[in-house]
Amino acid sequence: MNSTYFNRRTIRKYESRDIDENLLDRLLTAGTRTSTTGNMQVYSIIVTRDREMKRMLAPAHFNQPMVMEAPVVLTFCADFNRFNKWCRQRQADPGYDNFLSFMTAAIDALLAAQTICNAAEEEGLGICYLGTATYNADKIIEVLDLPKGVVPVATVTLGWPAVIPDQPDRLPLEAVVHYERYRDFTPGMIDDLYREKEARSDSQQFISENNKTTLAQVFTDVRYKKGDNEYFSAKYLEVIRNQGFLSH
Amino acid sequence: MNSTYFNRRTIRKYESRDIDENLLDRLLTAGTRTSTTGNMQVYSIIVTRDREMKRMLAPAHFNQPMVMEAPVVLTFCADFNRFNKWCRQRQADPGYDNFLSFMTAAIDALLAAQTICNAAEEEGLGICYLGTATYNADKIIEVLDLPKGVVPVATVTLGWPAVIPDQPDRLPLEAVVHYERYRDFTPGMIDDLYREKEARSDSQQFISENNKTTLAQVFTDVRYKKGDNEYFSAKYLEVIRNQGFLSH
Repeated sequence: MNSTYFNRRTIRKYESRDIDENLLDRLLTAGTRTSTTGNMQVYSIIVTRDREMKRMLAPAHFNQPMVMEAPVVLTFCADFNRFNKWCRQRQADPGYDNFLSFMTAAIDALLAAQTICNAAEEEGLGICYLGTATYNADKIIEVLDLPKGVVPVATVTLGWPAVIPDQPDRLPLEAVVHYERYRDFTPGMIDDLYREKEARSDSQQFISENNKTTLAQVFTDVRYKKGDNEYFSAKYLEVIRNQGFLSH
Repeated sequence: MNSTYFNRRTIRKYESRDIDENLLDRLLTAGTRTSTTGNMQVYSIIVTRDREMKRMLAPAHFNQPMVMEAPVVLTFCADFNRFNKWCRQRQADPGYDNFLSFMTAAIDALLAAQTICNAAEEEGLGICYLGTATYNADKIIEVLDLPKGVVPVATVTLGWPAVIPDQPDRLPLEAVVHYERYRDFTPGMIDDLYREKEARSDSQQFISENNKTTLAQVFTDVRYKKGDNEYFSAKYLEVIRNQGFLSH
């Protein structure tokens, strides 16, 4: 298989040159060939190239510079709006105002997103997922005019790499893969799986820069804090409800 | 980019030959190179190859024959269990028992799943997503011994194609892609976007076989019914709660 799968890194610095219309179209078309529940295609992709639209989107992504610097920003949404409209226009009563349907649509959106990322990387483009799509879905809905039935689940910035960073570490395969049954982790296994990551010089730097004593504390106390997670959880659930997916 | 992106179809009939261990390892490794929030890798993949395990999993997938016939079944899970254990072992207080963290972990799992599917298809393998992973997550948890912090989000069957079906239709690109702002659909646009799909002979056959008057009714009244969706919504939310993701 293509070596890109193994050599990839997330790209956060892009050249100023644009992505050719035709290439973008092929990427989007590849995305639409991805598996979709019952061939319903209950997702949508909002393409942002306009500078003023990027400026309006940027705060929702905490002004991460990739939003302004990437030639293309893609917002992937769980979307039952089109499908519901079709049903109503065809004497069919849609029953998709519930959490399962949100998940179905979110899965459709995320699988299409990842196909587009894989295909883009194969073409030499660089991508970066912005987790802020779920944090500030309400603002994104406002800026992109998303109607009821549509919820952002992922944002990807896309462009030609200007800086290719070192490839990040990953845990050993056995941290992620289980055979036949989940083999839960003993303290000794956790130590083994995280030993190499914890020993890295960049991990040590994270710890000292943040005045922490362990790498895990950098995650819990600085990067992904309980209070923030709870705040954004409530906000995202509210968005899902407002967009019509928690009526039952 | 690779033509597989454009020519792919979901494969439901597999040859009996197995998938080489080495190839499966490369696919899983490719999967772990996929983007993951903050490099936390908060997902897991359960590999099922054992016949008896497949037999136990099958009812959770409504006994769809792919589960028994595919040499490999992959269950992709949102997984904060390993990460939480690491935090607790390193004097860090994890705050991931909330809905946002579930979504973060589900996104990690789904992106890895799709990379594996794309890489597998490039190698000539065929894949099929089973939506039943969210329907019957409770049964899957039981069979695979999934601990708290772990929730199935997708199941993929994987094998060498025995029958390659016709490529399914997709809606025109403009049904899915919006530029700059969401352009909501007028009744005329809905008619245009669905015209070709509705005119297909297989669509006509679906309608008559199910004694319906429109294709949309086949979805709402037969395939993805309101009552079922609501039943499985409540069940999946309960699973997410039981696995510790709705404590806040």
